[in-house]
Amino acid sequence: MVDELKSQGHEVRVSDLYAMGWKPQVDSHDFPGATTASSTDNGHGGLSVVAASRDGYLSHTLTEDVRAEQEKLLWADAVVLQFPLWWFSMPAILKGWVDRVFSCGFAYGTGEHNSTHWGDRYGEGPFVGKRAMLVVTTGGMEGHYSSRGINGPMQDLLNPINHGVLFYTGFDVLPPYVVYSAARLEGQAGGYKVVADRLRERVRTLAATSPIPYRRQNYGDYEIPSLTLREDVDTGDVKTGFALHVRASPDEG
Amino acid sequence: MVDELKSQGHEVRVSDLYAMGWKPQVDSHDFPGATTASSTDNGHGGLSVVAASRDGYLSHTLTEDVRAEQEKLLWADAVVLQFPLWWFSMPAILKGWVDRVFSCGFAYGTGEHNSTHWGDRYGEGPFVGKRAMLVVTTGGMEGHYSSRGINGPMQDLLNPINHGVLFYTGFDVLPPYVVYSAARLEGQAGGYKVVADRLRERVRTLAATSPIPYRRQNYGDYEIPSLTLREDVDTGDVKTGFALHVRASPDEG
Repeated sequence: MVDELKSQGHEVRVSDLYAMGWKPQVDSHDFPGATTASSTDNGHGGLSVVAASRDGYLSHTLTEDVRAEQEKLLWADAVVLQFPLWWFSMPAILKGWVDRVFSCGFAYGTGEHNSTHWGDRYGEGPFVGKRAMLVVTTGGMEGHYSSRGINGPMQDLLNPINHGVLFYTGFDVLPPYVVYSAARLEGQAGGYKVVADRLRERVRTLAATSPIPYRRQNYGDYEIPSLTLREDVDTGDVKTGFALHVRASPDEG
Repeated sequence: MVDELKSQGHEVRVSDLYAMGWKPQVDSHDFPGATTASSTDNGHGGLSVVAASRDGYLSHTLTEDVRAEQEKLLWADAVVLQFPLWWFSMPAILKGWVDRVFSCGFAYGTGEHNSTHWGDRYGEGPFVGKRAMLVVTTGGMEGHYSSRGINGPMQDLLNPINHGVLFYTGFDVLPPYVVYSAARLEGQAGGYKVVADRLRERVRTLAATSPIPYRRQNYGDYEIPSLTLREDVDTGDVKTGFALHVRASPDEG
């Protein structure tokens, strides 16, 4: 990916979390500037993570590792998260990158809350105008992640990340690039080379690929503040679940 | 929860991950006994986590913190995971407890693979006969997590944990206990007391509550090895997604 992007003239910044010794867990060390009562006491003697996160972000006292990652995100035109699927989600170290970098006041908890606008989220937020894409490897076979596969459909397993983290904070989210049976590639037709070539193609077409057409929160599709999809929105055969929040076509709505 | 369980005469062991200083990330320090070529080199000079995890488990050389948690799991009749929902999933420290404790050879990668049985998983595995329950707090309002809510239905957001981690390893999984608007409880009818009383009730009825009736993998509902739900299984109106893998009633199938 890095070679392909550079060969197109792009500048690339890599955050290799293991190489960086990234600290995964959110704890009081993340908020050295947290001194207000609301930050340091959640009413039961513990840290209030939301308040401390907001205070730390607004007072520019978050730790340097977190601030550096926030700056990278603001600098980038496109962000790729690459990880192996562990227990149907991100490895802990990457989850901890999200938990720590996506601070209150920066990535959530922003914008007005009124009768037509319920915060800058789901299509609004700090990353509007940027693109994001997941690149995921998994040991399981593709059929296990199909529409009737026992693991559940891959797009549903990735929905908490694609919709809940990336679209929530304003990214245009591209369809993920998923490599199945990743530990047994050499036994398959084409093997590693085919997988790598397809990934290069996805990288080459990153700016032109249509994003997943998620519905934006504050543009009429949802009741506010219940944030339920309005009954008069035509969703065809889809009546519940994650799929309700994807428009049938990019041009609809 | 602890007080209620003890008052019923149960023995309780608590794993407070922050108090324990739990290490979230899987890395080479987890496998001090990994010396085989398959463990230490994934073909690209890196650690093969699956092989190292299996080798470490089978040779009893996993780190002491991981072995202690595995022993607790085998000792327990019931396991409760209690956490705040962060970015629609577990906090990194808890994800890292799953990533590290649920080793290959212990929690996955076990059992025969043949034309009628594809590993001991989804209803089989080390935790058969035990119960598990999630206790989850979230800042969002209940409607946001309803069937048409913008965050997606809570049962779908928790499916990667309930189905993908707990049922996968053999647990009978109880419906989760979810506290919505958790930071604003005092403003609600009853407030904290009502929430706490309901949780006590769930703890009191832990042994009697019907588990989520997930379909077991190796009992005829799935094609093997594609692990897709057989077309002749009657699923009513449900045609795709996580809900396919829940029987319409506990008595069916």
